Amino acid sequence: MTSGTPLSRTDAPGAQAGEGSGPDITTYRLENGLEIVVIPDRRVPVVTHMVWYRNGSADDPLGRSGIAHFLEHLMFKGTERHPAGEFSKVVSALGGQENAFTSYDYTAYFQRVAPEHLGRMMEFEADRMAGLSFDEEVVAPERDVVLEERRMRVETDPSAQLGEAMAASLFVHHPYGIPIIGWMHEIEGLRRADALDYYRRFYAPDNAILVVSGDVEPEGVRRLAEETYGRHAPHAAAGARLRPREPEPRAARHVRVADPKVEQAVLQRLYLVPSSRTAAGRDSYALEVLGEALGGGPTSLLYRNLVLDSRRAVNAGGWYMGSAIDDTRFGIYAVPAEEIALDALEDDLDRALARVPDELTEDALERAKTRLIAETVYSCDSQSSLARVYGSARAIGESLEDVRRWPSDIRAVTKDEVVAALGQWLQPRRSVTGHLVKGA
Amino acid sequence: MTSGTPLSRTDAPGAQAGEGSGPDITTYRLENGLEIVVIPDRRVPVVTHMVWYRNGSADDPLGRSGIAHFLEHLMFKGTERHPAGEFSKVVSALGGQENAFTSYDYTAYFQRVAPEHLGRMMEFEADRMAGLSFDEEVVAPERDVVLEERRMRVETDPSAQLGEAMAASLFVHHPYGIPIIGWMHEIEGLRRADALDYYRRFYAPDNAILVVSGDVEPEGVRRLAEETYGRHAPHAAAGARLRPREPEPRAARHVRVADPKVEQAVLQRLYLVPSSRTAAGRDSYALEVLGEALGGGPTSLLYRNLVLDSRRAVNAGGWYMGSAIDDTRFGIYAVPAEEIALDALEDDLDRALARVPDELTEDALERAKTRLIAETVYSCDSQSSLARVYGSARAIGESLEDVRRWPSDIRAVTKDEVVAALGQWLQPRRSVTGHLVKGA
Repeated sequence: MTSGTPLSRTDAPGAQAGEGSGPDITTYRLENGLEIVVIPDRRVPVVTHMVWYRNGSADDPLGRSGIAHFLEHLMFKGTERHPAGEFSKVVSALGGQENAFTSYDYTAYFQRVAPEHLGRMMEFEADRMAGLSFDEEVVAPERDVVLEERRMRVETDPSAQLGEAMAASLFVHHPYGIPIIGWMHEIEGLRRADALDYYRRFYAPDNAILVVSGDVEPEGVRRLAEETYGRHAPHAAAGARLRPREPEPRAARHVRVADPKVEQAVLQRLYLVPSSRTAAGRDSYALEVLGEALGGGPTSLLYRNLVLDSRRAVNAGGWYMGSAIDDTRFGIYAVPAEEIALDALEDDLDRALARVPDELTEDALERAKTRLIAETVYSCDSQSSLARVYGSARAIGESLEDVRRWPSDIRAVTKDEVVAALGQWLQPRRSVTGHLVKGA
Repeated sequence: MTSGTPLSRTDAPGAQAGEGSGPDITTYRLENGLEIVVIPDRRVPVVTHMVWYRNGSADDPLGRSGIAHFLEHLMFKGTERHPAGEFSKVVSALGGQENAFTSYDYTAYFQRVAPEHLGRMMEFEADRMAGLSFDEEVVAPERDVVLEERRMRVETDPSAQLGEAMAASLFVHHPYGIPIIGWMHEIEGLRRADALDYYRRFYAPDNAILVVSGDVEPEGVRRLAEETYGRHAPHAAAGARLRPREPEPRAARHVRVADPKVEQAVLQRLYLVPSSRTAAGRDSYALEVLGEALGGGPTSLLYRNLVLDSRRAVNAGGWYMGSAIDDTRFGIYAVPAEEIALDALEDDLDRALARVPDELTEDALERAKTRLIAETVYSCDSQSSLARVYGSARAIGESLEDVRRWPSDIRAVTKDEVVAALGQWLQPRRSVTGHLVKGA
């Protein structure tokens, strides 16, 4: 298959990196629909090769929760051309690293190797994009691995159980309320045919994004991509995502997990808020700044209020999961000091939220914005997080321009916008509050 | 199409009606799969004609909540042979009555007319089983009717909002958590094509049950059914239901709706429990008796405890929705007396539940069973509820024998079974508690 046309060339060569600009990225699309993002990084003699599929756990078919993650495991079980484990062995023999991860909105596979091995990685990764082949007998043991993973992470951890119960209460309709790993009883029912059906539906060049970061030339990457991924035919809308929208929330919810294993009580809260993709106007930027000002570390308003000043908590913080296709979560938490009951701490937390309009000084606002932007700049120091930032953005449908403009969009957030976002989105009826307590 | 074979003849003709026996029902299945249930009732010169489809709101496709109910409305909008309203006009002109209803597990249509008009009803009902035809222009106004219905019933009623929020919290995965009428924003998006796709999927003789009760002969009903419904081809597994199962609940949940319109605070609680279809052993019968003993009217344990003895509440009760394909709800509620806070009342309620093993005397148990059985016997006094009992049972997959045996199964419930069901199913982690309060 011959090459498609470049999608964009985001900067003139030689542009300075810095706030609001970012690296000199080249993007292409192959004729079969594969999107390619090449991010130059000549600091180290290493290349990061990632393939992102535009499907995650929120695209698991009804009753088959966990299939995206299970398939991620099965992707290491061999193809028609390469037996199970060969790819991993080659990566390891080359001194490379590899990994894979499944999120709500995407699944990604990556390897980090010396630049001269990039072609070999692409050969292997392209091969398993369409040639996955494994026997029935690998399915049950691998499912047991996943079940054990779930047992370890969730079934024996009351905190994880609270997290799952809170997400399930926050998202009453949307699949973000279903754990990425899947519900235990549905994982148990996952079969080889489910995995292959899902694979055929979503694993295709036109549902994927290839991100290559490192000491490489865009033209060279394109040529290699054509020779490898370019062999596969597209299958168009086969993988279209069907995502129901949440109904308008009406009721404040509380969720309580009591377990003898709990050593430390915790208060958690989630709010249903817009994401970077669903926000109208600048709400998503305002929520980013609010999250950081409220809960980003020991200078944040919650920490100062609940830990330093009133000493009602030993830790407190908050965060905003802005990167999501659909409406998403804004979280806050507090760990009570000794003798402080969660109900009382919850009242303190509500009072702290009510004081934000008074306490959010221009100075605090600027510091929050600076921290947020700095985190992004730091993340670009690591080649793999650079690749991850751009890959995840494209996987949820953000443009490279969105990523590039993000620091200046954050910089422009005003106090009024933050206070308005707080008032509009952090309402009791949009919330789920969680109590983790020691108990029977 | 010629007739199929009788499925069963549940009793010898002339059997005595009474507890544990029931009417002398005849069932057949036409060759196209239509199930027919004929229930003799010669007390009044009236016949009840019902068609039950084995699909309800819990079978609405993802993102199309409300479609089962919307289609129920559209079923009155005419067919290729009869314009909109003609069927209703005929029923009315014959002095008959008609209605339709959508539930979680089924949708049903019924008419009550003089026996000589049964054939005409079957002609019309069979016609709209396959010949539904309406123009685009009826869709939007009918959707507005449904939206207005939702606005009236839910959007302006805080109690209904609490009910929806509680169900959504109880069922984190299963569609019983979605309102039958649908979520507002999804009703708004329902189109003619959605309704017709859904209609073609589910409205078929092999997905339906015809129930005829009245002064009729089984043979005559069969002949009429063959001439009408018998014309339609089956379409087999097209309508197969896909129902995800709930994960094991782990967290006690609380849901709170505060609204200035609330005149009377209310405490509600739901538990996720097995239904008549999912219960292992006799749990469903035990839950029936528990529901009645706990909350069935002014002699029930909750009423006695909370209203008569402690005077903490002005009303209290409970119920069990045993008739469901999948795991279902057990509900209790209490309306606080003046000056009694819901949190305090909730503690009272928990104490009352904890006392059940002590307070459930053999006498109270027997009274509960007698009331339950009497309700069923009374319901058989009405021809239409008789038809409804058998139709709904068959629609969720219970056998006629299950219905017939129900009174003796209830009669056999022991105190140990009730106490065991209480301990196993009415656990905090299986519950959602709702507070309806006056507030901002």
